Amino acid sequence: MLVLMVTARAKIRLFVEQPLGQGQGIALSQPQAHYLANVMRQREGAEIALFNSRDGEWLARLTELGRRAGQAQCLAQTAPQRLPPDLWLLFAPIKKARTDFIVEKATELGVARILPVQTEFTNSERIRLDRLQAHAIEAAEQCGGTYVPPVEPLAPLAKRLADWPVGRALIWADEALAQDARPADLPPAPAAILIGPEGGFSPAERARLAAFPMIYPIALGPRVLRADTAAVAALTLWQSAKGDWQ
Amino acid sequence: MLVLMVTARAKIRLFVEQPLGQGQGIALSQPQAHYLANVMRQREGAEIALFNSRDGEWLARLTELGRRAGQAQCLAQTAPQRLPPDLWLLFAPIKKARTDFIVEKATELGVARILPVQTEFTNSERIRLDRLQAHAIEAAEQCGGTYVPPVEPLAPLAKRLADWPVGRALIWADEALAQDARPADLPPAPAAILIGPEGGFSPAERARLAAFPMIYPIALGPRVLRADTAAVAALTLWQSAKGDWQ
Repeated sequence: MLVLMVTARAKIRLFVEQPLGQGQGIALSQPQAHYLANVMRQREGAEIALFNSRDGEWLARLTELGRRAGQAQCLAQTAPQRLPPDLWLLFAPIKKARTDFIVEKATELGVARILPVQTEFTNSERIRLDRLQAHAIEAAEQCGGTYVPPVEPLAPLAKRLADWPVGRALIWADEALAQDARPADLPPAPAAILIGPEGGFSPAERARLAAFPMIYPIALGPRVLRADTAAVAALTLWQSAKGDWQ
Repeated sequence: MLVLMVTARAKIRLFVEQPLGQGQGIALSQPQAHYLANVMRQREGAEIALFNSRDGEWLARLTELGRRAGQAQCLAQTAPQRLPPDLWLLFAPIKKARTDFIVEKATELGVARILPVQTEFTNSERIRLDRLQAHAIEAAEQCGGTYVPPVEPLAPLAKRLADWPVGRALIWADEALAQDARPADLPPAPAAILIGPEGGFSPAERARLAAFPMIYPIALGPRVLRADTAAVAALTLWQSAKGDWQ
């Protein structure tokens, strides 16, 4: 629905790793050069927008562009750096398309960090980290943000809980919770949202979570939501109540 | 995440068109017989759950099952009929996978009716109504609900607005709205949520919507959400504030 706004700001937006600043030259990657030259039919002299999760958004001019390499030069900062609230998303990987979707939606809705966790009933033992990170980058490029949440390697839920930072609330979308439990009293940042796998959490995991000091169980309505739906719904509720949608 | 709960209720769940009641015999469709016999490896005598959007959920026994036809008999009602709140979703069809996704998520989150609308910048001129309805049915079977929202034929937005029912609020996820507009004061049912196409609404459509008597514009945070993300976010906020998640 929302491409108009981006178009009005006249931009193809690309995430880069390098520092951005006045006059700074930026080497584009081979996929970026291919995308600009062959997909978007850009030429040398065209203007694009760059961001790197640190230095805001910069207007840049393409100073060289081939099919496999390119160079841009920063002209002016067009938006300040904007960081999302200090909200993490922990989720158990599910089917590939739905896992991709969770990463895309978490980036759009605004999270600081994405942590895939392995649970006892997690269906998939491995994730393609590079692929998930690429989805987060593409989502940030699309949604007009200036921040790409890092996607961390898959780690066991038990290890994440053992290493849990002091003071960070853990919001647990608990499928077995009474339907009348309201998500009204969500904790502020720093916080994290935990979404389970399709098979739910094991009894041992449930007991561990229920006894966890920083736990905030929430219910998400009377129907049984898929994991990807639950992730988007929980992120929306938190952003609206305690995050940067306020 | 949530299959356990459904499994605990011991069921393959199927939507049927016929009336359900004590002792009622139900003819299964060819795809249902195929699914039960070949995908789920069920046999005659197995128990499944049936619902039809009217008579609640019924436990039924397979009395005949071939690869292309089958018959079930209702044993007992296992859940009362539960209707979603009187909330409609109007959305402009986008890419196929994302349109499918919107229908699936709207069914899970709980809507009474799904109305695809054609706007000036709608990318796709046609929808596969049977395919979208099948997605809604599958989502209802999965999510443990007893209601399948009807997916209406594609109609121009102007026509839907011209025929708008008296007293139904129209919540407009407006991409151009100031970021500080809060979705705090959502109207109660009867209501509808309107999500635009990827190109946004045209100036004429925006003027028409802004002047519409029952309009409630809402903003969905500082990042630019894709249409499918916006649909899930808006449905979540409404359900949590005024719907059956309360």
